[in-house]
Amino acid sequence: MEYYSKEIGNLIGELQKLPGIGEKGAQRLAFHILNMPPDDVKHMAETLVSARTNVHYCKVCCTLTDSETCPICSNPKRNHRQIMVVENSRDMAAYEKTGKYEGVYHVLHGAISPMQGIGPNDIRLKELMKRLEGDVDEVIIATNSSLEGETTAMYISRLIKPTGIRVTRIASGVPVGGDIEYIDEVTLLRAFEGRTEL
Amino acid sequence: MEYYSKEIGNLIGELQKLPGIGEKGAQRLAFHILNMPPDDVKHMAETLVSARTNVHYCKVCCTLTDSETCPICSNPKRNHRQIMVVENSRDMAAYEKTGKYEGVYHVLHGAISPMQGIGPNDIRLKELMKRLEGDVDEVIIATNSSLEGETTAMYISRLIKPTGIRVTRIASGVPVGGDIEYIDEVTLLRAFEGRTEL
Repeated sequence: MEYYSKEIGNLIGELQKLPGIGEKGAQRLAFHILNMPPDDVKHMAETLVSARTNVHYCKVCCTLTDSETCPICSNPKRNHRQIMVVENSRDMAAYEKTGKYEGVYHVLHGAISPMQGIGPNDIRLKELMKRLEGDVDEVIIATNSSLEGETTAMYISRLIKPTGIRVTRIASGVPVGGDIEYIDEVTLLRAFEGRTEL
Repeated sequence: MEYYSKEIGNLIGELQKLPGIGEKGAQRLAFHILNMPPDDVKHMAETLVSARTNVHYCKVCCTLTDSETCPICSNPKRNHRQIMVVENSRDMAAYEKTGKYEGVYHVLHGAISPMQGIGPNDIRLKELMKRLEGDVDEVIIATNSSLEGETTAMYISRLIKPTGIRVTRIASGVPVGGDIEYIDEVTLLRAFEGRTEL
């Protein structure tokens, strides 16, 4: 960073803290910012602080929101007896984009990972169990199809089973448009095991 | 953006304004920022505003700096009679990283591009010509090897030639480690034309 003056170095350093942004990327962003109108930079900075200050967990589903209860949890048209469990708010947005799911969500903010020292108490599981004390018909586990996601799905299903509530897991298999030739064996086996009648 | 609450949508929108950051990238950065400690976000925001406020053009070479004269222009050990002309501060940093160049720089902040409507008056050329009124031995033109960079180099050399100051252009050819098989014909021709005696 010694090639740039202190203020520019600081800016590059801050931008490099963001995920997926390396030294070159941070330099490019920094010089873009230095060439932006000062008011635009001020507005961007204010948006950062305002979002971080006003966004918190929805008191029902734990997603990130700026209201006490998120728009989905406070929508009476949604089916509040069907809860889809996801790892984070982005996964929730991905399912929302399908436009077909009418139930509500529960955001765990992570997945159980013994390797990374993340246990059941480090994700929003207690909040989920608390919700199940109310009227719930089904819990759909939509954690990722990774080792951590599967571990979490298994753990949650064992936890819920005794309550008698239906627990389901989203299907794993060949993605739509996927070319079987290029798909890994584990996925192919899953697709085989999960085959349905035509 | 309707899948996120307003504050999150605003944050994603602001981040999307940055170069090379699309919708998915902005979402990832936004959720990272929302999970950062609030003080860190505040510090990041302050760094943005502070850099934009305090960084301006060096009064000698026009590079971006937070002091009146940049560290290179105010360094008496550098050869102030040798000026390397570059398109932007990042190109200057790239040459500084070689650690071998002992002269000073002049940053144009762009290149002449009739296609984009950027003419000689839109880049810092007047400032360069003013510098040449002092004692200068050589002007090295290190603009990019693109159409715009070459046009700019040609324009500057014609402007300077009458003053009698030596004007040179950095070499164009096969990059070190480059595989001739994969290099475009124009570069190969340039390398041929620029061949030197062994």
